[in-house]
Amino acid sequence: MSRFFSKKYESLVPYTPGEQPKGRTFIKLNTNESPFPPSPKAQEGAKREVELLQLYPDPTCSALVNKMAQVLGVKSENVLMGNGSDEVLNFAFMAFCDKEHPAAFADITYGFYSVFAELNGIAYLEIPLNEDFTLPVEEFCKISHTLFIANPNAPTGLAISLSDIERILSSNPDRVVVIDEAYVDFGGQSAVSLIDKYENLLVTGTFSKSRSMAGARLGYGVANAALIGDLHTLRNSTNPYNINRMTMAAGIGVLEDEEYTKENCKKIIATRARTAKELEKLGFEVIPSLTNFLFAKKEGLSGMAFYKSLREKGVLVRHFETPRLKDYNRITVGSDEEMDAFLQATREILKEKEERA
Amino acid sequence: MSRFFSKKYESLVPYTPGEQPKGRTFIKLNTNESPFPPSPKAQEGAKREVELLQLYPDPTCSALVNKMAQVLGVKSENVLMGNGSDEVLNFAFMAFCDKEHPAAFADITYGFYSVFAELNGIAYLEIPLNEDFTLPVEEFCKISHTLFIANPNAPTGLAISLSDIERILSSNPDRVVVIDEAYVDFGGQSAVSLIDKYENLLVTGTFSKSRSMAGARLGYGVANAALIGDLHTLRNSTNPYNINRMTMAAGIGVLEDEEYTKENCKKIIATRARTAKELEKLGFEVIPSLTNFLFAKKEGLSGMAFYKSLREKGVLVRHFETPRLKDYNRITVGSDEEMDAFLQATREILKEKEERA
Repeated sequence: MSRFFSKKYESLVPYTPGEQPKGRTFIKLNTNESPFPPSPKAQEGAKREVELLQLYPDPTCSALVNKMAQVLGVKSENVLMGNGSDEVLNFAFMAFCDKEHPAAFADITYGFYSVFAELNGIAYLEIPLNEDFTLPVEEFCKISHTLFIANPNAPTGLAISLSDIERILSSNPDRVVVIDEAYVDFGGQSAVSLIDKYENLLVTGTFSKSRSMAGARLGYGVANAALIGDLHTLRNSTNPYNINRMTMAAGIGVLEDEEYTKENCKKIIATRARTAKELEKLGFEVIPSLTNFLFAKKEGLSGMAFYKSLREKGVLVRHFETPRLKDYNRITVGSDEEMDAFLQATREILKEKEERA
Repeated sequence: MSRFFSKKYESLVPYTPGEQPKGRTFIKLNTNESPFPPSPKAQEGAKREVELLQLYPDPTCSALVNKMAQVLGVKSENVLMGNGSDEVLNFAFMAFCDKEHPAAFADITYGFYSVFAELNGIAYLEIPLNEDFTLPVEEFCKISHTLFIANPNAPTGLAISLSDIERILSSNPDRVVVIDEAYVDFGGQSAVSLIDKYENLLVTGTFSKSRSMAGARLGYGVANAALIGDLHTLRNSTNPYNINRMTMAAGIGVLEDEEYTKENCKKIIATRARTAKELEKLGFEVIPSLTNFLFAKKEGLSGMAFYKSLREKGVLVRHFETPRLKDYNRITVGSDEEMDAFLQATREILKEKEERA
C-alpha cells in the first residue's frame, strides 16, 4: 500500500478468483466454465467486429439490449448490460445500499458480495445458512436490509423456489432484493417473470456459464425501468463504453442461438447426474445441485487433502478452507471425458489412501 | 430515478459521450477515433481468442502487462491495464482522493474528470485555463489537491512541457499528480520516463487513439510499484477479469507492431498540418495541436451554426456549447479523404453564408 492510498480502503481485501494455471495443462474444474466452445454465431459476430476496432462501441448497446430483452421476454427498458454480472452487482451495491440501507446476504454465498460492500463502504450482515446449507427464508424476511441472494447459491448448488422469493420480496417492498441468477440455466427457476409485479426486484445474470462466454465478460441486470435507469446513471458515470464491440457482437450471436445454449445445458445436467451418482457410489455426500458444479465431501477425507491429491493428478477443483466449507470441494461439471478423468483420479486417490491405511 | 436510488447520487450527471450515429452514414470526426484499422497482428490475436471464450481471461493480465512494460521501457510492476483509460482514471479518483484530498483539474479538459469526482463523492476545484487556453502551471503548483492533467489537453490540443510537469510534481511531493496521456503519441512528450524520479506520479494512456482500438476498450496506468499496487487492490475488488480475452490478445498484437502505430501517427500528424493550413486559409483560427484533433473557430461563424451545417452535409464534429468553448468545434483528424470532404463541406458552408449575406 502506498502512503497516498485513501484510508477508506486500508482494510479492503480483494476478491480471490479461482486459479488460472499457466504452464502445465490441467483438467480445469475450478471456475465453473463451460466445457463447450462459444456458439458459432457468437464467434462469427466477434470476428467480424475485430476489423472495426478503431471505432468506439455503441454506448447504448441497443442491438444487444433489444435482443436480450426479446430472449428474456421483457422490454428493452428493463435491461442493462454489464462487463460481466460482477459489474452489474457492483452497481447494485452502489445504487441501492448506503449508510441508511446496509446490505445482507448469506454467510455462504458468492464471495464477491462482501468485497463489493467493503469497496463501497457499506455495512453488511451475513445471515448463516441452515445446517444443511438451505437458505433461512424467514430470516431474510425479517430484516429491512438490501438483499443479495444467489439463486441457485454457490458454492452449494442449492436453490430456493419462486414462491420463497415472492415471500421475501413482499415482506418489505421498501428495500431492493437482488437475485443473482448466474447458474439459473442449469435447472433453477428464474425470477425474471416477477419484475413487473415487484418494483423492488433486480435479477442479474451472466454469459459466463451456460453461454460459454466467460472470456468475453458479459452480464446483465433485469428490473423495472426505474431501477434499470438508476444503474444506467452509474454505468454512464463510470464507463459508458463498458461493452466492447467484439463482446457485444458475440452476445448478440449467442442469443440468436438459444438452441445451442439449451442443448449444452441439457448435456451438463446429464453429466452432472451421472457424476453425482458415481461420487455417491464412492462414498461421497453430494449436495443436490441445480448448477454446473457439484459440492461434495467424503467422511474421513479432508477437503484440502482431496483438493491437493486431485491437483497432483492434474485435476483442478475449487477448495474453500473456511470452517463450514473445509470438508467440501466444488467441482465444475465439465465434459463427459473430463468428468471421467476426474472420477478416475478420485478412485485412484481413494485406493492410495486405503493402501496407506 | 427510482425511490430506491441512494441519495448520494441524486445530483449525479453522467458523462455525455460523442454521438455514435445509427442509420445515416456520416464522416465521423467527432470522437477522435483513428481512421486506420487495427494492426493485422491485433486482429489475428483477437480472432484466435474468439474460439476460447468459454474460458475466463487471465486475471493477472501478465502477458499483456509484460509486453506493455517492455514497450514503455518500465518494469511489469509499474503497469496496470484497464478497461479503457477511463477505468484507470476512475480507480485513481477512488484511490488518491477523499475528504482530506480533494481533486483539482482545469476548467477546460476531459469532461469525465468532474463526473468521476461526483461519482465518488469527491470535492473538486476547477482551475481556469489562461485566456489562450494554456495551463496556468503556477496555479497547479500552489495548491495541495490531487491533480488530474490531460497532456496534451482536450479539447484544446495544447500540451505542457516535461519541465513544467516536473515543477508541478516537485511543488508538493505529498499529493498524487495524474498525467492523462490519451493523446501523447501525436507529438506530445510522455512523462513515463519520470515515474522512478517522482513517487507521486501516475501516467495514464489509452489504446483508443493511436492504436486504433477504441472498440476494444483498453487503457493503462504507469507509476511506481506502490501506486500501481493500490490500483490493483481496487481492480481486484471491482472486476478482476476487467480485460476480456479478445482485447488482451489484440493489445499484445498491436504492441508487437509498434511500427504500424508509429506510421499511422506520422500520417495523422501530416494530415493535421495540411488540414490546419487549409482551415487557416479559409479564415479559421486553429489552435496549434499536438493531438489527433483540431480545435478551431472563425470570426462571424458561430460554433453551433458551423457544427449544424457540417452535420447537414454529412460531417460530424464535436461541439461544446459552454461559454468558453462555444465559438469552437473539435475536429478529429481522419484520413486524407475524410479531411478533404470536411474541407469541401466547410468551403460550401462559407460560400452559402456569403451568398445569404
